[in-house]
Amino acid sequence: MKTFINENFLLHNKVAKKLFHDFAKELPIIDYHCHLNPKDIYEDLKFKNLYDAWLSGDHYKWRLMRANGVSENYITGDECDFEKFKKWAEVVEILIGNPLYHWTHFELKRYFGIDEILSSKTAKEIYDRVNEQLETLTARKLIEQSNVEVICTTDDPIDDLKYHELLEKDTTLNIKVLPAFRPDKAININEHTFNGWIHALENVVGYEIHSLKNLEKALRERIDFFHQHGARLSDHALDVVEFEEATMEEVSEIFSKAINNETLTPTEVRKYKGYMLIFLGKEYRKNDWVQQYHIGALRNVSKRMYEKLGPDTGFDCINDDKIAKPLSELLNALDETDDLPKTILYTLNPRDFEVAITLMQSFQGDGIPGKIQFGSAWWFLDTIDGMTKQLKALGNNGILARFVGMLTDSRSFLSYPRHEYFRRLLCNMIGEQVTLGYFPLDYELLGKMVKDISYRNAKKYFNL
Amino acid sequence: MKTFINENFLLHNKVAKKLFHDFAKELPIIDYHCHLNPKDIYEDLKFKNLYDAWLSGDHYKWRLMRANGVSENYITGDECDFEKFKKWAEVVEILIGNPLYHWTHFELKRYFGIDEILSSKTAKEIYDRVNEQLETLTARKLIEQSNVEVICTTDDPIDDLKYHELLEKDTTLNIKVLPAFRPDKAININEHTFNGWIHALENVVGYEIHSLKNLEKALRERIDFFHQHGARLSDHALDVVEFEEATMEEVSEIFSKAINNETLTPTEVRKYKGYMLIFLGKEYRKNDWVQQYHIGALRNVSKRMYEKLGPDTGFDCINDDKIAKPLSELLNALDETDDLPKTILYTLNPRDFEVAITLMQSFQGDGIPGKIQFGSAWWFLDTIDGMTKQLKALGNNGILARFVGMLTDSRSFLSYPRHEYFRRLLCNMIGEQVTLGYFPLDYELLGKMVKDISYRNAKKYFNL
Amino acid sequence: MKTFINENFLLHNKVAKKLFHDFAKELPIIDYHCHLNPKDIYEDLKFKNLYDAWLSGDHYKWRLMRANGVSENYITGDECDFEKFKKWAEVVEILIGNPLYHWTHFELKRYFGIDEILSSKTAKEIYDRVNEQLETLTARKLIEQSNVEVICTTDDPIDDLKYHELLEKDTTLNIKVLPAFRPDKAININEHTFNGWIHALENVVGYEIHSLKNLEKALRERIDFFHQHGARLSDHALDVVEFEEATMEEVSEIFSKAINNETLTPTEVRKYKGYMLIFLGKEYRKNDWVQQYHIGALRNVSKRMYEKLGPDTGFDCINDDKIAKPLSELLNALDETDDLPKTILYTLNPRDFEVAITLMQSFQGDGIPGKIQFGSAWWFLDTIDGMTKQLKALGNNGILARFVGMLTDSRSFLSYPRHEYFRRLLCNMIGEQVTLGYFPLDYELLGKMVKDISYRNAKKYFNL
Repeated sequence: MKTFINENFLLHNKVAKKLFHDFAKELPIIDYHCHLNPKDIYEDLKFKNLYDAWLSGDHYKWRLMRANGVSENYITGDECDFEKFKKWAEVVEILIGNPLYHWTHFELKRYFGIDEILSSKTAKEIYDRVNEQLETLTARKLIEQSNVEVICTTDDPIDDLKYHELLEKDTTLNIKVLPAFRPDKAININEHTFNGWIHALENVVGYEIHSLKNLEKALRERIDFFHQHGARLSDHALDVVEFEEATMEEVSEIFSKAINNETLTPTEVRKYKGYMLIFLGKEYRKNDWVQQYHIGALRNVSKRMYEKLGPDTGFDCINDDKIAKPLSELLNALDETDDLPKTILYTLNPRDFEVAITLMQSFQGDGIPGKIQFGSAWWFLDTIDGMTKQLKALGNNGILARFVGMLTDSRSFLSYPRHEYFRRLLCNMIGEQVTLGYFPLDYELLGKMVKDISYRNAKKYFNL
Repeated sequence: MKTFINENFLLHNKVAKKLFHDFAKELPIIDYHCHLNPKDIYEDLKFKNLYDAWLSGDHYKWRLMRANGVSENYITGDECDFEKFKKWAEVVEILIGNPLYHWTHFELKRYFGIDEILSSKTAKEIYDRVNEQLETLTARKLIEQSNVEVICTTDDPIDDLKYHELLEKDTTLNIKVLPAFRPDKAININEHTFNGWIHALENVVGYEIHSLKNLEKALRERIDFFHQHGARLSDHALDVVEFEEATMEEVSEIFSKAINNETLTPTEVRKYKGYMLIFLGKEYRKNDWVQQYHIGALRNVSKRMYEKLGPDTGFDCINDDKIAKPLSELLNALDETDDLPKTILYTLNPRDFEVAITLMQSFQGDGIPGKIQFGSAWWFLDTIDGMTKQLKALGNNGILARFVGMLTDSRSFLSYPRHEYFRRLLCNMIGEQVTLGYFPLDYELLGKMVKDISYRNAKKYFNL
Repeated sequence: MKTFINENFLLHNKVAKKLFHDFAKELPIIDYHCHLNPKDIYEDLKFKNLYDAWLSGDHYKWRLMRANGVSENYITGDECDFEKFKKWAEVVEILIGNPLYHWTHFELKRYFGIDEILSSKTAKEIYDRVNEQLETLTARKLIEQSNVEVICTTDDPIDDLKYHELLEKDTTLNIKVLPAFRPDKAININEHTFNGWIHALENVVGYEIHSLKNLEKALRERIDFFHQHGARLSDHALDVVEFEEATMEEVSEIFSKAINNETLTPTEVRKYKGYMLIFLGKEYRKNDWVQQYHIGALRNVSKRMYEKLGPDTGFDCINDDKIAKPLSELLNALDETDDLPKTILYTLNPRDFEVAITLMQSFQGDGIPGKIQFGSAWWFLDTIDGMTKQLKALGNNGILARFVGMLTDSRSFLSYPRHEYFRRLLCNMIGEQVTLGYFPLDYELLGKMVKDISYRNAKKYFNL
């Protein structure tokens, strides 16, 4: 009987099979955006068991467990590890149509050679078999085994990048682990974390930040510092895209009000944020960095659970704000003075794909192929339907062949098969186009496109 | 030659066929939301003819007739029944791609054994053959013949439920006909019907309602009354989702203003509505009821036709308001105090599916499998594309296996084949997943899921 | 080896093939909305070379070239024609999934008999072969060769229609070239072009326009003038749909303020626009014209490039404003007094399809089949996915058989194969419905529907 994760999983035509096996399969992985902790990589984290590796921090799984009627005790509570794992296995058993069904079995297969389907019946056996292997399969081994070439983490501008430094000097690891710059806390002037963060930044740079000018100086220094440590990307969580033009004078005053704990109006917040995004965009451009905009999450909607468990615990959803006007104004403000850096737009609401892609196409140029990118299907869209829709929408109104492809966006060391999942879907989609007669059968050309999208475009685009 | 509604209609793979015929086909129907009149059931309504049964009250059909250039005379006017029916047959003839083409032929086949395609040519013959059968095929017979186990009607809180009582005592009918609580008129404080409705409620409860406290008392009594008569569901038409926090004091004042015929501001209306939805939600929770939110209709857009024909005559459409923020705030207000009842979210705009599903998943819990549900494709979405999209979207970001499935939402006694339509699509979609290799072929497990979604989940979820 | 544009391109089932070849292929083209210059038709424009015919004015292609990293010099700059063409060929080579890949090869095949795939390698040979043919293939020959019956251009109300007059008298051309009325400049009271346009209108009508009454008089005269020259359509770019009721007195004052160069408030702008759309709608109705609403473009988002190149140069995108409420109010304002003319709604954002279609269905009537139309997939949606989605959405909630079908919306004489592209997709979609068993196999009926949608519905609807 054919195993579930078999060699032609997701590949539904002859062309797709050839493209995947001959061109995509063996390519290294550039995971240009993830949430791994560099400390864990440096210290070569060892997992207690499969629960620890899989379930202790994965809110994707937690959400599904809650939806299956599992009580919180078995999710974030203090039930024992195997019992929690078993509850997860019960969810998996019935998870038809959900990408986690596939990820689960890809991860069992690729890392642990397990072909059995996870269910309440097989839970114990699989748990034991995996745990045995986890004795030796540490974080670094999981990465190496996945053929990873580059990892870009997600780091606060005030981070000392100590572990990145150590990793750089560590000759035993053959993988680049680079920092990426995530200055959300410098931008979210309306959040209670702002002043604390400014103080932390003062400590890092060694001088007081009482003026916008000094804040800009400090951020510039941190960008330089990150750049010296190999950073080539930044990342912004634009949950809501807001933009309002503002002068430096206005924003200086707004900043002063904020650090004096005065309340800001929504307009002031918008002005500060817009100004800051433009300031940073210009700096990224000078350094030839890529900026990433992650657009459209509505976070922590259950206040009760937020109080209990904090952020990133499974209580976020897709937002439905307008993006066309504010996002076009933001990009235009950078473009107008020819300061727009390479930019990736990720939209969490699939209904925004066409808006984002046609907007992106209005800011292409500079002689850079695919200068503005429409990011890979993200988070809730990381499904067969979502990823296929992203690829098709990009093809319809952009140049698919210039796409920088997949990233894991993951907190887990077991997520690299998502690149394989993507490559299979990509090959299948391209194979389908060819099979339907929508593009000629020319393996040299098709293979080149598959290789570019799977690996080479990213390498070039990010200067890695 | 194969008949049009043949045994494998909508079933495009082997797995789908087996699942439908072996697991889904014979299951009873729980129609947990419809607009049938309990009086008609009790009195065992007899239809004059097929026009009477099909066209006299069906605005789905009226809209299509208008779009086909049929003059209003033949729709809601005084042309004779057969001539009106013939105009409908002319529409059906060319209705490629429309679900009413399928419903029409399903209904002709299942109730009247007719395999002919309806067209201008066959109209007379079909009309006559059906009319002959309608001599004896009364409302009750149509229901019984459809293997219906439970019907939940839609009732105003002031309804005396006389016919539900009579039906309860009637031992000749083997079907549960339960009321459901639809308090829109208690909530729509800004509509001209509000004060009249409050007076009617006063008459029902037997005391004056001059304060919010008394209104709450009265509504609580009506919920109890409905509960005693078997009600387990409520239903709300949230055409626009609005929410604004408010204190009881504020809302007491707003209510006083309303019953004194003072004009309310939009903010006051929002506050009252939000408060009332929270009040009712808490009451539902106490009774372990399910609340249904029907979101996103824009009604009566042609004022001219509204004046002429009133509501529900074919002049409604899909709205495009934002829902993520207000709906999350509304659910959070109930969740925060742990008072969120089981809830079904129905969105009329298909672009809101992903927002609603990811929002729903943020409020799961309580140890109830599928506590918050994403409702079946509704009204304008009740199509092959809409229903399939609903099932896939639910699978992508939720647990399809926990879905409570289909309802008719219909005003007609001839709509039960919509459950068959749904089950066929469900089996086809599941069969397709399996055929593509996205889920293992395990008929025991798949059959269980099909049975659950088609029947058992609803039975359990609604405590029926 | 099968040629790329072969006889069954896009036709994936037997029924589709028969429908296209037996019913659709040979029908003439009614191109009821395009942007061709009647002067070019009258003077029988001759093209310098393939660059001139294809690339000198086509912003669809320019956008893709920019996205491929081509520098502006090779797009709108002064590089030589062939070098620019070669850059385009390099884009085409990798353009998998994009409709321009198909249009490109359709145009090479249908006009120039070229079967080779365009790429950097074949660019020179194809360029030379086409240029040779362009020696004799003038504008009129291209039109005639495409079996075009009617062309409706897009004209400013102040246009003297000189070339339409000349064409009318020209017995050497067997094709109707009719004007269409595009009064955007009369409506966009908030744009700097407004007063200049009013002055130009004064010159045309020969009297001063200092009052709303006179403006209405002048517009009425222009509509009459256009009608006498065969116009049967108008067209409005409703980038944002706004509506606010207003009295004639209010709007008179607003108009006076505008021509006195006073600044208008957003509300005043909305009132004027709404009033004007209603005024014009009534006039169209009197003349039995069709009005077209093109909804949802966000234009000229890159200010830098707008300064440099002007409008329509590839810097537009899809907008995401709400449309349900304002559009329903606008249509209702005309419907309320029974003055709603035949109307085509085109939405640029595919997420608005269901809103627009269900809204359209709420204003059908008057005994006119398909009185309100949901327009063909437009601009960024002119793709296999977009066009198929449009057809399916229309089928789901409307009557596909009453659809008036395709238009080119093009500035190029080489765009007529888009009608073939549409007809193939239409036949494929209908054939698929039949093949799946969703509609009976009745070639007489299906063929009639295909002919209607491809040609006859438009002929009748537009009185051509």
